[in-house]
Amino acid sequence: MTTVLKLGGSVITRKEQPERLDRTALTTAAAAIGDAKTERLVVVHGGGSFGHPHAEAHGVSTTTGTDDAAAVTAIHGAMGELSAAVVAAMQADRIPAVPIRPLSAAVVSGDDEYTSTEPPGEDPDHGGQRASRVGLATDPIRSLLGDGFVPVLHGDVVATPGEGCTILSGDTLVAVLADRLSAERVGLCTTVPGVFDTDGAVLEEITGRDAVADALGGAETTDVTGGMATKVDRLLGLEAPASVFGLDALPEFLETGTAGTVVR
Amino acid sequence: MTTVLKLGGSVITRKEQPERLDRTALTTAAAAIGDAKTERLVVVHGGGSFGHPHAEAHGVSTTTGTDDAAAVTAIHGAMGELSAAVVAAMQADRIPAVPIRPLSAAVVSGDDEYTSTEPPGEDPDHGGQRASRVGLATDPIRSLLGDGFVPVLHGDVVATPGEGCTILSGDTLVAVLADRLSAERVGLCTTVPGVFDTDGAVLEEITGRDAVADALGGAETTDVTGGMATKVDRLLGLEAPASVFGLDALPEFLETGTAGTVVR
Repeated sequence: MTTVLKLGGSVITRKEQPERLDRTALTTAAAAIGDAKTERLVVVHGGGSFGHPHAEAHGVSTTTGTDDAAAVTAIHGAMGELSAAVVAAMQADRIPAVPIRPLSAAVVSGDDEYTSTEPPGEDPDHGGQRASRVGLATDPIRSLLGDGFVPVLHGDVVATPGEGCTILSGDTLVAVLADRLSAERVGLCTTVPGVFDTDGAVLEEITGRDAVADALGGAETTDVTGGMATKVDRLLGLEAPASVFGLDALPEFLETGTAGTVVR
Repeated sequence: MTTVLKLGGSVITRKEQPERLDRTALTTAAAAIGDAKTERLVVVHGGGSFGHPHAEAHGVSTTTGTDDAAAVTAIHGAMGELSAAVVAAMQADRIPAVPIRPLSAAVVSGDDEYTSTEPPGEDPDHGGQRASRVGLATDPIRSLLGDGFVPVLHGDVVATPGEGCTILSGDTLVAVLADRLSAERVGLCTTVPGVFDTDGAVLEEITGRDAVADALGGAETTDVTGGMATKVDRLLGLEAPASVFGLDALPEFLETGTAGTVVR
C-alpha cells in the first residue's frame, strides 16, 4: 500500500514572511510521520513563503515559463532550502527521508503529443494543471520506496518544451504520484481542518463537483498554483480517496487512511 | 550537435582538502565555456573533495550501497554544494546553467532485467560501472537543451533497487549522456593534458585497449569511482570521439571538438 502525503506550503512555512519556516508545525508533522512508520510513503510539500515569492518576482507560473536560468535557480534554490529543512526534520525523527527534486525528474508539456518519460494514463485531474501532461521519472522513487526510503518531493520549476521552465505545483505532483504509483491513500495536510460548506462547517465527504462549487473559496495569501477549489477539483479525479485535513488530524490520516474531508 | 563536457572533480576542487573549491580553475573553466557559447552543451562534474570523502566515510561506492538516509543526504548534500557553486560560476559568465541532480533522475541496477526509465541500448562501456545498467530521465535534459539551457549534472548517490543507494560516477554519467543524447562531442577536462604513454608523453590518439594498457596509471588521491584506466576504457566504447585534456585545452576542445588525447 502506497501513501502520498502533501504537507501544504502554508502549513510548514509562515506564508506572510519570505523564506520563514514554521518550525513548530514542521516538527509536529515530522513527529506524527515518525510515530506512524507508514510503509511506502511519499511526501510532497508546497512552496509556501519559499517558492511562491520568487516565482511571482520572476513572473513564472504554471502557464508562463521563463528561459532565464537565474530565475530558474532562484525559485529552485529557495525550494531546495525548504526541501533540505523538511528532509532534515524528518530524519531527526528517524524517518529515512531523501530529497527528490522535480527540476531533475519532470517535464510539463503543453502539447498532448509530447512523449514523456512514461506513458500518461487517463488524465486524473479536471482543472488546473493537467497531470497527464506531466512526465515524471518514477523509477528512482519506486526504487527508493522499495528499499524503505521516504522520497520527499516539492512544487518546483520544471522544464517545459518550448517554454523554458514553468511551475509544477505540489498539488499536481500529488495527482501525478497518486496516479503513477497507484497510491491507495492520498492526504493533503492543510491549514484548515477540511473543506468548509457555506455555513463554515467541515464537510465529511465530497463526491461530486456540483455539490461543493459554492462552498469553495480561494487562499488568502500568495499562491501561484491555485487554492482549495483547484485542489478539490483535482482530487475528485483520483482513483484513491483523498483527504483534506489539518495538522491535528495528520496522525488520524496516517493511522486510518482518511481524515477531515474525504474526496472521492 | 550535442556536446557532453566533464569537468573533473580534481580540476574544480582541491582534492587534498575537504569541500574546498579550486575557484581559480572553476572561474577559468566557466570563462572558456562562456566564450565558446557551445550549442546543446551538457556539463557533468565529478565529486572531488566534496563527494568522495563522504562516500568513503559512509562506506558507499559504485558497488556497495547504503540504506542509511543520513549517508545519502550527506553525500548528496555535499555534491549539491559543489553543483550550486559550478552553476553559479557558470551563470556569472552568462551561461544559462541549471542543476540536474542524479539522485532525482537516475537508477542504477545490478540486474540486467530491470526496466529502467528508458531502454538501455548497447552497453557503451566495457569496464567499471556499466552504463547500460543506468536508467536516466533524459526528457528534462532534452527539454532544457532545446530551450537553450546548459544542464549541469554530477556524480551522485542514486537509487539501486535492493541495495539502497550506490554511487553513480561522473564518468559513467558522461557515457550514459553521450549514448542517450547521441552526443557528437565528448570531452573530459582533467588535471593532466591527456593520456600519457610509458615515456610520459601525451598520446595523440587511442584506438584500442591493448595499445595503452601499460601506459595507464591510477589517480593519486581518493577517488571511489576509478582512475584513468577506467575512464579510457569507458570512452573506448562510445560512438563519438572522446577527448581527455587539461584545463588549458578547454577552449580548443570547445572550438574544434577535440583536444589532448582523442579516444576513438
